[in-house]
Amino acid sequence: MQGQTRHLWRDVTLFDGLQQRPGPMAVVVAGERIESVVPMAELDRLDHAGVIEAGRGGVMTPGLVDCHTHLVFGGHRADEFEQRLEGVDYETIARNGGGILSTLRATREASEHDLFQAAAPRLQAMINDGVTTVEIKSGYGLNLADELKMLRVARRLGEDFPVRVVTTLLAAHAVPPEYADDSDAYIDLVCREILPAAAREGLADAVDVFCEHIAFSPAQCERVFAAARQHGLPIKAHVEQLSNLGGAALAARYGALSADHVEYLDEAGIAAMKQAGTVAVLLPGAFYTLRETQQPPVDALRRQGVPIAIATDANPGSSPLFQPTLMLNMACTLFRLTPQQALAGMTAHAARALGSNAYGRIADGARADLCWWDLQSPAELAYAVQPGRLRQRIFNGEVTHG
Amino acid sequence: MQGQTRHLWRDVTLFDGLQQRPGPMAVVVAGERIESVVPMAELDRLDHAGVIEAGRGGVMTPGLVDCHTHLVFGGHRADEFEQRLEGVDYETIARNGGGILSTLRATREASEHDLFQAAAPRLQAMINDGVTTVEIKSGYGLNLADELKMLRVARRLGEDFPVRVVTTLLAAHAVPPEYADDSDAYIDLVCREILPAAAREGLADAVDVFCEHIAFSPAQCERVFAAARQHGLPIKAHVEQLSNLGGAALAARYGALSADHVEYLDEAGIAAMKQAGTVAVLLPGAFYTLRETQQPPVDALRRQGVPIAIATDANPGSSPLFQPTLMLNMACTLFRLTPQQALAGMTAHAARALGSNAYGRIADGARADLCWWDLQSPAELAYAVQPGRLRQRIFNGEVTHG
Ligand SMILES: [Zn+2]
Ligand SMILES: [Zn+2]
Repeated sequence: MQGQTRHLWRDVTLFDGLQQRPGPMAVVVAGERIESVVPMAELDRLDHAGVIEAGRGGVMTPGLVDCHTHLVFGGHRADEFEQRLEGVDYETIARNGGGILSTLRATREASEHDLFQAAAPRLQAMINDGVTTVEIKSGYGLNLADELKMLRVARRLGEDFPVRVVTTLLAAHAVPPEYADDSDAYIDLVCREILPAAAREGLADAVDVFCEHIAFSPAQCERVFAAARQHGLPIKAHVEQLSNLGGAALAARYGALSADHVEYLDEAGIAAMKQAGTVAVLLPGAFYTLRETQQPPVDALRRQGVPIAIATDANPGSSPLFQPTLMLNMACTLFRLTPQQALAGMTAHAARALGSNAYGRIADGARADLCWWDLQSPAELAYAVQPGRLRQRIFNGEVTHG
Repeated sequence: MQGQTRHLWRDVTLFDGLQQRPGPMAVVVAGERIESVVPMAELDRLDHAGVIEAGRGGVMTPGLVDCHTHLVFGGHRADEFEQRLEGVDYETIARNGGGILSTLRATREASEHDLFQAAAPRLQAMINDGVTTVEIKSGYGLNLADELKMLRVARRLGEDFPVRVVTTLLAAHAVPPEYADDSDAYIDLVCREILPAAAREGLADAVDVFCEHIAFSPAQCERVFAAARQHGLPIKAHVEQLSNLGGAALAARYGALSADHVEYLDEAGIAAMKQAGTVAVLLPGAFYTLRETQQPPVDALRRQGVPIAIATDANPGSSPLFQPTLMLNMACTLFRLTPQQALAGMTAHAARALGSNAYGRIADGARADLCWWDLQSPAELAYAVQPGRLRQRIFNGEVTHG
């Protein structure tokens, strides 16, 4: 460690993503990693060569991990939001090209540069709110060129912003209008062309599907899972959001990293997820925006020991909410998670939903992705919605905020 | 105007608090006031002496007016929030001194300095979100000294921060423990000592009550209203939140500026409010946090032409939400207001709920309290929850943000 600058945060209340440690702690960061985490009483035992005090007091959490977003898209749907509230019905909006089709059209028409420029302020808002890792899905291109275009934009966001971007190919998000009468032929295209190309170009870290009456059947989703397996890509799935098609159990059979939404998940699905180590990703922003009433089976998930992650589902239609800390509050208020569970859901468990345990925890050797908050207890973070309490955000060992 | 600096925003999409003007507009600010608002086509006709271009494009709205907050308080209730989610029941929490009593205790124990320091970051968060006028209530002191202490802190916040603070005496917020067996005696104290002292010292711009089974009866509230009238102070009232006691009609009879919450408001109450010019203040944050299901009668209020304001109700128990723009989204999502109605509810109608039409509008001669947003349409403001879109906040003609 000779000569290397090391940073010390002392007297911090620490939430490591899984438990709150009692008493004040000291955290030393060396380079891109957390070097040591010790109770204050043991601070003297550490080697102090080249240590600079970076902060004192407050609350430290892992950097927030938003493991389910659709952050790259063309246009927005504010007009549609307004029309619905003015009493225009869904059918009329759809007939006029609204809904996901309007996002599809705008995304296809946009250049990579346009999409990057549009996503940048949304990503910046999330970074300012404490995010250090964000998953970004494709799914508004729905053809080879435009799905890959979305993924390239997501990759570029990760290169240009101080944040870790994890990409997911969600070509099986909706049936594109060209295939309205033959969704199987579209699944052919996904499995034979889009997925292999995304894999070949290294553009996708995982593959996702939307398993629902209004999207794809379990049989169609299984074809996508099989293709993903063939190309060595892990899978995720949007399942049991509006009904129970058994999508979670199916995804678990393919070793899914996560099953997302899961309001209608049943005991069989939970058992399958438990066995496969699949994380349940709850999306309170979509539940809130769609004014849903079917609660995800939080107690049953807890009882079975299935890890629960929380994400924004940030997207232009059902969750135009680009504020991860708001999801901590919504997870508590709407889904009755405790503040600690919500926080674990946007740190360690969210990292696991992305297939990693290298970040999302405050532990020796983990990535130094951290948030240092102007708070007295971690619970305050979920309790109050109050932007501006993030004093420092540390990404890969560098303080990039505050 | 000779020699005076004037600022021009050009090509802005303008929402003036009541209607969206078609086409791009120009806004000229001179000193503390809006000098002129004209369509871009007429810009040449304006006198251009000393005009500096301050901005171009984007959306301009009045500065946001949060007309119902409890921003000054001691302590917080994150622990209680956590306990409830861990399954501890209300009774146990109350027996252990939780609920409003814990805030009462912490507020009484706090010095003015402490209360100021605690409120400052909450107020700053609201300012950063676009607030230019904020109402702050007392109501956690519940004795002469501590109610006046809260109001003094509120006044000082208005002096030290670039924001207009309007104060409300809410001594009749809850029955203090010393008067648990004799709430009438507490109302005596309010009417004979606290209210007159607040009036004498110029600390209160209005007087408020909480009319509900768990607080004060209509007869007790009426005594407070009569005392307020005697001292020349306008009134407001927390009414029909949990049940219908006819509080809104009673308040309207005393010419109330506003009746707030009003989930259980009936047609008679609405008619009385219409006749008295009383504004209905909806508080979606409390509705959300308490997971209420009784919707305020939005359609009936609209039909009768009662102006609807929206506020945060920012407080440590039932609405720990210190983000006014989030309320715009919640008003639409939870109460089905249109984005324009929500925006009017935090601008012109909120100003009216505070007894003023000098701000909250973009019109010749109005206070130059403005927000300039990085948006294409005003609807986007309510549609997406995304901090960071405020490019400039203008308070009393001065750009204080961005
Ligand atoms: Zn999604
Ligand atoms: Zn209130």
